Order: sequence, then C-alpha cells, then structure tokens
Amino acid sequence: MSTTTAPTHIKRAFNFNAGPAALPLPVLERIREELLDYRGTGMSVMELSHRSAEFEAINNAAEQNLRKLLAIPDDYAVIFVQGGGSMQFTMVPMNLCLPGKPVDVLHTGAWTAKAIGELKKGIPHHIAASTEAEKFTRVPRAEEIRLSTDSSYTHYCTNNTIEGTQYHSVPASVAPLAADMSSDICSRPIDVSKFGLIFAGAQKNLGPSGVTVVIVRKDLAERADKNLPTVLQYRTHIKEKSLYNTPPTFAVYTLGLVTEWIAAEGGLTGIQKRNEAKAKLLYDTIDGSKGFYSCPVEKSSRSLMNVVFRVGGTSAAPGDEALEKQFGKDATAANLIGTPGHRSVGGMRISLYNAVGRVAVESLVHFMREFQRTKS
Amino acid sequence: MSTTTAPTHIKRAFNFNAGPAALPLPVLERIREELLDYRGTGMSVMELSHRSAEFEAINNAAEQNLRKLLAIPDDYAVIFVQGGGSMQFTMVPMNLCLPGKPVDVLHTGAWTAKAIGELKKGIPHHIAASTEAEKFTRVPRAEEIRLSTDSSYTHYCTNNTIEGTQYHSVPASVAPLAADMSSDICSRPIDVSKFGLIFAGAQKNLGPSGVTVVIVRKDLAERADKNLPTVLQYRTHIKEKSLYNTPPTFAVYTLGLVTEWIAAEGGLTGIQKRNEAKAKLLYDTIDGSKGFYSCPVEKSSRSLMNVVFRVGGTSAAPGDEALEKQFGKDATAANLIGTPGHRSVGGMRISLYNAVGRVAVESLVHFMREFQRTKS
Repeated sequence: MSTTTAPTHIKRAFNFNAGPAALPLPVLERIREELLDYRGTGMSVMELSHRSAEFEAINNAAEQNLRKLLAIPDDYAVIFVQGGGSMQFTMVPMNLCLPGKPVDVLHTGAWTAKAIGELKKGIPHHIAASTEAEKFTRVPRAEEIRLSTDSSYTHYCTNNTIEGTQYHSVPASVAPLAADMSSDICSRPIDVSKFGLIFAGAQKNLGPSGVTVVIVRKDLAERADKNLPTVLQYRTHIKEKSLYNTPPTFAVYTLGLVTEWIAAEGGLTGIQKRNEAKAKLLYDTIDGSKGFYSCPVEKSSRSLMNVVFRVGGTSAAPGDEALEKQFGKDATAANLIGTPGHRSVGGMRISLYNAVGRVAVESLVHFMREFQRTKS
Repeated sequence: MSTTTAPTHIKRAFNFNAGPAALPLPVLERIREELLDYRGTGMSVMELSHRSAEFEAINNAAEQNLRKLLAIPDDYAVIFVQGGGSMQFTMVPMNLCLPGKPVDVLHTGAWTAKAIGELKKGIPHHIAASTEAEKFTRVPRAEEIRLSTDSSYTHYCTNNTIEGTQYHSVPASVAPLAADMSSDICSRPIDVSKFGLIFAGAQKNLGPSGVTVVIVRKDLAERADKNLPTVLQYRTHIKEKSLYNTPPTFAVYTLGLVTEWIAAEGGLTGIQKRNEAKAKLLYDTIDGSKGFYSCPVEKSSRSLMNVVFRVGGTSAAPGDEALEKQFGKDATAANLIGTPGHRSVGGMRISLYNAVGRVAVESLVHFMREFQRTKS
C-alpha cells in the first residue's frame, strides 16, 4: 500500500479515541478503492460468500499476517471470533478451567474487574495481586504477586486503557497465562510462548470493532467440556478455521489490511520504536509542564498506548475539572479528537495506538503548550 | 439516497450468494463516499468512538428504522449483538427456558438441526413436528404440529436457506414463538406481536455479516437467571441499548443504511411485491422448462428467498451432476455469481434477497433458457 495522503477536500481529524480508534489512512484508502468491486469480482468484500475462494484467501492472509508479526509458534492456534473482551471474560474460564483448580487474577482496574465479575458467578478464583489500594496507578511488582500453587490459569490485562498503566515485562506464572491484550496487541514484539492464551478485540491496534483475535495453545483448547455450547468452545473455531459460523467478513478483511500495513511499517520492532517516541514526546510535555499537567501513573507502569493526565491541579486537588472540560472543548476545536478521560475517572486520556501518527502527537503537544500558556 | 448506477469502470456482478449476499448499490456508494470522513467528523465510521454522539445517532437510527419497517410494538426491545444464529441457538434457551418446561421445535432442516444440537446438551425439548421423512421438501402443515401443553417456547425457522422452504403463515403456538428469521427478516411485513423473540443475522437482507438483530418481548428477557454470563443475557443489551460491550460499529452503520434504503423502496410492502415478482419469474422458468429444471420443494412451501432446483434430471435421478457443475461454471462466466446449491444437498440455489434486483433475475432466466436450449 502506498502512504498517500488524503485528497485535500477530505477532512481528517487527529484521532486519539480509546477504541474504536484511528485506522491507517492507506488502509482506509484501499478499502474505499475496492469497496464496490473487490479485485475484479464485481462484488464488495461484504458481498462475498464466506465460503468463497476470495474470502478464504482473506481469512488465511489475516491469520498468516498475525503469525508473522507476532512470530506465533505452530502449537498455537489463531482464531477470529465475535463478542470482544466481554465474551472472552466468559469463554476463557469456560474453556480453560480445570476441576478444583482456581483461576488466579492480577487485578489492575476496570477490565480485570469485569473478568473477576464473571468469575464470581461460581468459578473458584483468587486475587493473586491487586493495586486497588494505590487506585490502580501502577501494575503489581513481581514480589507482590502471590500465585496459587495449583491454578487453572493466571488472568491479567497487559494494558489498562482507563487507568493508563501497562506491564513492561511478562509476569511469571507456572500456570498458563491468559492475557487480555485488547489494547496493546501488535504494538510491540512479545514472546507468545510465555502465554497460554491471548485475546484482543481488534478495535484499538488491529482494525475495526466486531472481530476478536484469540491466540491459544492448542492443548489448552482441548481442556473444554465438549458439552459446552459449540460456538463458545475454542476448539470449534480452531477446527473450522474461524468459519464455523458466518464470520464478520469485513472486519477480518480490514484486520488483514492493517496487519499488512504494520508489516510494511517495519513490523513490531518498527512500530514499537514509533510508539515509544510518540509516548515520550507526550510524557515529556506533561513532566516538563511544572505541574500544570500531571500524570498520576507511576513512571515504571506508564502505558505507551493510553496516556492519562490531569490539567491544572494543585497540591490540594489532582485536577481542575473546569479547566479539563475546557481542554477537551478547545482540543476538539483544534481538530484533536477524543482527549477526555474515561467517564469513570475524569481527567484527560490520549490513546496513541499504532495508527496515530507522530504528526498527531506533535500537534497535540503544541496545543498543550499553547493551552498552558494561555490558562496558567 | 439516490439510485445512481456504478461508474462504468466499476464491474458489478449479479450476485445470488446465500449470505453474506448482495447489498444495495446506493448503500455501497454512500459508504464509499463517507469512508474517510463521516459527515464532517474527519473520521471514518470505523474510527468513531462507540460512545460518541455520532455513533449514538447511528445506533438509534438503525433501531428506529427497524422499528418503523416492522412496526415493532413498544413492549419489544430491539438489540444488536454478535455471533449470528449460532450464538442465538445457545442464547435463546439460556434466556427463555423455564424450569421443567421443555422447548418445542419445528424441525425443517439444517438450521433447526443446529438449534436441536444445542438443546441436546441437557435442555429438555420436544420435536413438535418434522418433515425429515420428506427430506425437508416442505414445512409442516398446521395439523401435523403437536405442541407440548406447557413448553417454555416454540422454536422454528421461518425460511430454510439450504432446503429452499419458507413458512407463508405463522404457526400457532400458545407458548412464545422464537423465530430464526435470519434469511427472510424484512423481506415482507410480519406481525411482530405473534412472536416472543425473533433473531436474524444481518448478512442476508439487512447488511453485512457481524451483527445480529434480536427482537424480544421485554418480559421474556426477564426470565433469565441473573447469574448467567453478563454478555449472554438479553437484559444486559436491552439495558445498555446494545452498548454494553463495543458494538460492531461499521456493521450497525451499514444495517442502518440498508434499512433506510428499504424504507425508500416502499417499505416491506413494496419489497414484498418485488420479491414475489422476482421469485415468480424464476419459478415460472423452472416450471415451464418441461422438466429440464425441477424444483424439489412442494409449491405451498417454496421460498421467495432461496430458490433451489436441479438441472437435467430424469425420472430415474433428480439431477445431472455434471450438467449442474457446467451450469454453475457457465453462469459464473456470464457474471451470475453464487448459483451452486449448498454443498450438503447439491443442485442449484438462487438467493433472491432484497438487494438482488429484478434485472439480475431477468439475466439469470435468460441464461437458463439459453443453457437449456444448448444442452437439452
């Protein structure tokens, strides 16, 4: 794909949404180009049969692109399912729990709380670590994690979109690690062999909403009771190569284009460097603002994906809500979209997923300096 | 939306796929037009936050369009979920079963077999009628249906894509009717008040794959045990207006455009007339072929959506497989896509969903007459 820019009559925002989020412009251009006629078929991708040779090629390419990017070993299956993380909070325990063996959870905020909420419906589990006492402003340290001696698996969330925290190394676990990687998959290289299962909704780094990637060690998928609903068993989708039920064909196609774009941008090593540079630019601006902007997250746990900060705080209060509201409003007027923080925590949140370009971050920090100059 | 035709350099096929299937050209053109900049936002629809005012408007419009088209009473909820019919085969019994009260099923082919397969995993059920002995070449007659005296609900499939059969009236049932309407929803007016629950994957008459419409009487959604997985409870999606988890935003948007198109085409009364005329043209061609083409389905059960037929049969055999293979090949060469029957039954299948234009059917019957002339 070329990295052409949009025609001048098309307005494009600097999009810092937390997900669904920015997509690479060349991907959108390609979609537009072939929307009415996918590569000479005379049909839109959306109109192709999921049993056609064309869609089979799209489905295989999406899987193979992910396998290459993440260097996924052969003993892992890669499947595309529906329902996002919320469905996985149910499917993971349904499929991976062993009789009498609890689930260990590292609790780091809203998303692990949702996973725990589903476990509370009758599945033995154990909170092996929690940073709730620190208001989730960091992830647990290695020495704080108290795993069970014989758990079914350990659940954790690699990046916490709402709290702005991220693990920068993989926690140790004898039991298989089940990672909610929804918000940082394919933002950096990982060693897949350290995980038992990885799941991720596509709508942050990999494409549009509506498709969920599951990477699962094949032997673990065999743990599931065959009497479970067919559509909720990983083995069903492994066996049928994600074609057991009609897949979200357009979302899989777009995921294929996005992963192709990532490869062309230097793969995960290249993307990681860019992501680190983007985040550094923003955190440096916050840290260099003499307290006008402040990031509540402990430095070692700061997320490269979701940068949270407060505006205009004092020693008495973490942020000035009126000023934060003004920040969001002025940013929108400056074509900088999606800066307000999650409604549950307030403040600001800037999501810096793969498709957010450096120029967007430069525009943002320029805006932030100007905002500080006029308001402080 | 205008009903403009595609630019001459864009090839468009006559698409008879069974689903995912043809979409209205004006809908595809609209999607293309606003793909990089949704109505001045500077973002693609796929890049909008599902919590944004823009997407909320899209989500509401999709629901309201369906409510208007189908005249859905206020005591029914309309929700958009993921996972298609396969997920509903699990969600319907999970949510609607009452203790000690079996599920009645009217068995008419491959799709009800899937529903029964899930019920067999421990849910009491009763086959209240089956046309398996007739190889599913018709739907049950009213007098053949033996309902339980006290069932949780009655499941049936209004249109059978593989067998080419369709109910032309709603079966009587004291217990709530749960209808798999995946392949004929919004192809004709219905009386929603006769149903307890209707579900339909969008990928035939309503849009792309990846979104599933559920219309459910609100009191029935309250039957579910609150300890069920949150994402598998209808009440969750009703309460959160289909925004509990990140929705398949692009698919919902497209469904909204398709339903807008249906309204502009005369609503369900207009669409029904067109669908009847399209099907008549094709069935008349089959019936007038002096046996060269033959439809195995009993006339009173013939589907207006999926027309199945055999080619070149004799009194000894229903179809000539070599000739059928040739038919599919020659049809594809003539830009008529998707004519082979389902792999499980063979023969030919022509899907005539809403977005298949009359000109496509005229081209097909012209091809059929020519094929017969040269091969018989």
